[in-house]
Amino acid sequence: MINKLIANIKKTNAPIVVGLDPMLNYVPEHVQKKAFAEYGETLEGAAEAVWQFNKAIVDATYDLIPAVKPQVAMYEQFGVPGMAAYEKTVSYCQEKGLVVIGDIKRGDIGSTSEAYAVGHLGHVQVGSKSYAGFHEDFATVNPYLGSDGVKPFIKVCKEEKKGIFVLVKTSNPSSGEFQDRIIDGRPLYEWVGEQVAAWGEEHMGDDYSYVGAVVGATYPEMGKVLRKVMPKSYILVPGYGAQGGKGKDLVHFFNEDGLGAIVNSSRGIIAAYKQEKYAEFGTENFADASRAAVKDMVEDISGALAAAK
Amino acid sequence: MINKLIANIKKTNAPIVVGLDPMLNYVPEHVQKKAFAEYGETLEGAAEAVWQFNKAIVDATYDLIPAVKPQVAMYEQFGVPGMAAYEKTVSYCQEKGLVVIGDIKRGDIGSTSEAYAVGHLGHVQVGSKSYAGFHEDFATVNPYLGSDGVKPFIKVCKEEKKGIFVLVKTSNPSSGEFQDRIIDGRPLYEWVGEQVAAWGEEHMGDDYSYVGAVVGATYPEMGKVLRKVMPKSYILVPGYGAQGGKGKDLVHFFNEDGLGAIVNSSRGIIAAYKQEKYAEFGTENFADASRAAVKDMVEDISGALAAAK
Repeated sequence: MINKLIANIKKTNAPIVVGLDPMLNYVPEHVQKKAFAEYGETLEGAAEAVWQFNKAIVDATYDLIPAVKPQVAMYEQFGVPGMAAYEKTVSYCQEKGLVVIGDIKRGDIGSTSEAYAVGHLGHVQVGSKSYAGFHEDFATVNPYLGSDGVKPFIKVCKEEKKGIFVLVKTSNPSSGEFQDRIIDGRPLYEWVGEQVAAWGEEHMGDDYSYVGAVVGATYPEMGKVLRKVMPKSYILVPGYGAQGGKGKDLVHFFNEDGLGAIVNSSRGIIAAYKQEKYAEFGTENFADASRAAVKDMVEDISGALAAAK
Repeated sequence: MINKLIANIKKTNAPIVVGLDPMLNYVPEHVQKKAFAEYGETLEGAAEAVWQFNKAIVDATYDLIPAVKPQVAMYEQFGVPGMAAYEKTVSYCQEKGLVVIGDIKRGDIGSTSEAYAVGHLGHVQVGSKSYAGFHEDFATVNPYLGSDGVKPFIKVCKEEKKGIFVLVKTSNPSSGEFQDRIIDGRPLYEWVGEQVAAWGEEHMGDDYSYVGAVVGATYPEMGKVLRKVMPKSYILVPGYGAQGGKGKDLVHFFNEDGLGAIVNSSRGIIAAYKQEKYAEFGTENFADASRAAVKDMVEDISGALAAAK
């Protein structure tokens, strides 16, 4: 799947991923109204609104992008119907040829981590049959529990040709509280990054490993260091746009081959129609605003990469 | 909810929690067969088997125990139908008067953590209505992302009178890889524990905080230290039984008031019928074996606490 991700990136010439994190207040009122007319102001209604919103954005952008990253929390908040909308979104994006990175940040121990891995990346056995519950292509994984928590994911990835991105240095302001603490002269995130590199070396696609890392766009200096610590790991970079990261900050997340990183934007793309810059599209044409925002983001990042050469 | 948890513990005189982590191979064949006859060998069939298994165990033990801890991964592996079985289990246990600790180990940043908190402990707004998606009473939370990841949970807990248990020192063999690393002379888990204590001080029930901690039974010496670092935090203790912890190892997880800790057992209770010790019950009476195992566990822990006085 890491090979497919890279092929998609090369094909679109866009090292970006669209974060499908549909807060209900991002969903235009006319979309909400239509869903509520059919299902009422219920969890089912909210799930339908979110799904129709996603579908419109995917339809308007899929030819420009290699991948999407639905944030499962935004669906989980709507209970079981929300999880059904999540699964439907994953399926639809895959039908459109997109790689789906499930931003699930799961992590537990032993058989429990394996159950998460099976549910999201693998197949679960039921009697003589087997089923893929949420069937994302990649998942994000929290490393706080150590190897016991991560290895079951890697095992399932190996069997299913899927991949993971392990949280190394997250984009949020307080990520340093624990991640930046110094251990034997180096911050915790470097130790975690080193572990990611070690796991990755044994689990290679053609050029990159299918054990990747998450490093926030908001910490470009740390990204520069981590790029060297994990030369064969793809870096998923959240925090672009709304969280403050800019194209020129991101060049050191990439390797010299122009690969090695994929930059996520969520709000900046899916709620583009709310920005003054894209207001001309109007709420009715929110998906066209998203398409324009994707083009601008690709230009910003490609421009920065070209200028750095 | 921390007050209700403590009231339940006093009423049952049992500082234990039953982990409802139903691997399909724990579910007796006759229960599976019945479910598959109705729903086929499908995700719905697996979810029904798991639900019927849980229901039988809850019916056989609810008068002896204060709380249950369903592990969401075991449900999530069965996709959307699995999540429906999870919600049904939460509801049923609450109807029986049990406190439900959702072992979800979620953790993200800002609005995303808030979405998890809302989905599991709070209410989500849909138009003019509001809904509680999974409505557990407590949730476990991963602290790797720092305060940004934990505070949205605390905010929802405050509004809803719910609680959390933050992962401090997990029970698995490799938990030390990151958690035990030394920072300014003390291990990471102590720094996390100190943060839990600080969050907890501002969010008190009558005697204990509703910000608790997870500390594994498999590390009793660390439990002793952490008990003092977080005097007002309830400690959820996994790793008893199948993972190797014993009653006598656990006395220092408790305060002198005999409170302050609640010990989880999953496999040891729900799959008791598979142990030689409880084989006399037979597979048909698996729930009675669970009841006997609960009584033995309470005796082991209460005996150890009494002996330590």
